[in-house]
Amino acid sequence: MQEGLIPNVSVDCVVFGFDFTNLNVLLIERNFTDEGIDYADLKLPGDLMMLDEDLDDAAARVLKENTGLSNIYLKQFKSFGSPDRLKKKPRDLVWLRQIDHPEEHVITVAYYSLIDISEKRNDEIILSDNASWYPVHELPDLVMDHAEIIKSALEHLRIELLNKPIGFELLPDKFTLSQMQKLYEVILGTTFDKRNFRKKISSMKYLIPLDEKQVGVAHKPARLYIFSREVYSKTRKDNFDFSV
Amino acid sequence: MQEGLIPNVSVDCVVFGFDFTNLNVLLIERNFTDEGIDYADLKLPGDLMMLDEDLDDAAARVLKENTGLSNIYLKQFKSFGSPDRLKKKPRDLVWLRQIDHPEEHVITVAYYSLIDISEKRNDEIILSDNASWYPVHELPDLVMDHAEIIKSALEHLRIELLNKPIGFELLPDKFTLSQMQKLYEVILGTTFDKRNFRKKISSMKYLIPLDEKQVGVAHKPARLYIFSREVYSKTRKDNFDFSV
Repeated sequence: MQEGLIPNVSVDCVVFGFDFTNLNVLLIERNFTDEGIDYADLKLPGDLMMLDEDLDDAAARVLKENTGLSNIYLKQFKSFGSPDRLKKKPRDLVWLRQIDHPEEHVITVAYYSLIDISEKRNDEIILSDNASWYPVHELPDLVMDHAEIIKSALEHLRIELLNKPIGFELLPDKFTLSQMQKLYEVILGTTFDKRNFRKKISSMKYLIPLDEKQVGVAHKPARLYIFSREVYSKTRKDNFDFSV
Repeated sequence: MQEGLIPNVSVDCVVFGFDFTNLNVLLIERNFTDEGIDYADLKLPGDLMMLDEDLDDAAARVLKENTGLSNIYLKQFKSFGSPDRLKKKPRDLVWLRQIDHPEEHVITVAYYSLIDISEKRNDEIILSDNASWYPVHELPDLVMDHAEIIKSALEHLRIELLNKPIGFELLPDKFTLSQMQKLYEVILGTTFDKRNFRKKISSMKYLIPLDEKQVGVAHKPARLYIFSREVYSKTRKDNFDFSV
């Protein structure tokens, strides 16, 4: 094991990439050879923490080292510490022995993030060669407990989407209700009846209709909306919102 | 350091006790002697994790060992890993050297809980001799970063109180609106104008008024209410509640 690392604490990063068709997750290849066979198993960007490193700094460092991505807001959501989390799959044990980290009990602190990887933005995102996006609903087999970590991250992301206006950061400034419906469908992994969806969002006073329609589309142009952060702050109230 | 412990990972438990007058937090004494002087600094129940122990099990074990409390639901809320979190106060360093745990970088996984310690329940709660309740708004100096951990736990508790019906578990089955107001005031650390409070809660359809009033009180008896979990499940909707 590399000196300066803490043997029992790692960080893992679940980076969700949204592109209006799929919700994707960023995975990296774990390349190693065992008995003459090359393996390229898929895993989350993650690694052991370093001594005297802050947790959030460790997450940013590991993401950068593993994927090339930097300056992404990562939110800590949960730590995973089951004693057998590294030991369930035989090939993980082979790999752990090869990196001189045999059968340790590692607690991982997990972070997640949601970024825009639609066509418009995708050119700006430069990934390392061994990092790629995979649709979250068709994930291949993953190493260790990484499938469980992604599942938990997805639950946290969905709760945040249902409770905070994070979705609007992925929409254009002016958007149609169909685009908005698609965003919710993709992230929540479901489909909505168009009429029910519109009924549900009709109470959102912070969705402001414009006197403007789409241009340059083949179909009948739809009305454009904006999200008003100001109205949102003023009108949003939970049933329990007593904050003073 | 005791064998079998993981040197870099601990758990800490923030147990809030509510009694209709104060929101309290459970602290234990850290007793040690340095240069002939006895110290009894206050800290959260917490300790290092054991190898091959599950995180949630570690939290339950440490709470039991430190305070005598068991069978309490503990919710993991955040991990703290600043490299200097144990090193800010000179006496903490003295103590760490005495327990053969000098200057390590320890990441702590923090849990919180909210329990009823009102008169009615308090007799059932048997605490170890060195564990006591302290009002959360008048906390004494605490060791290491434990004040910060409590502050973060309180933020998580308040968000949960404002978003989920956890408060009703601390109220009697039949309660008055004044009791409900008091509960929110104590936990949120604020006061509400009575009329504004009633106006705010008037939209809660799951608060069912009874044809019953308080009995045996010196003042004018107030109407009693019940919380209907059934109505709550049916009517509660966030602005973003698209769940299907």
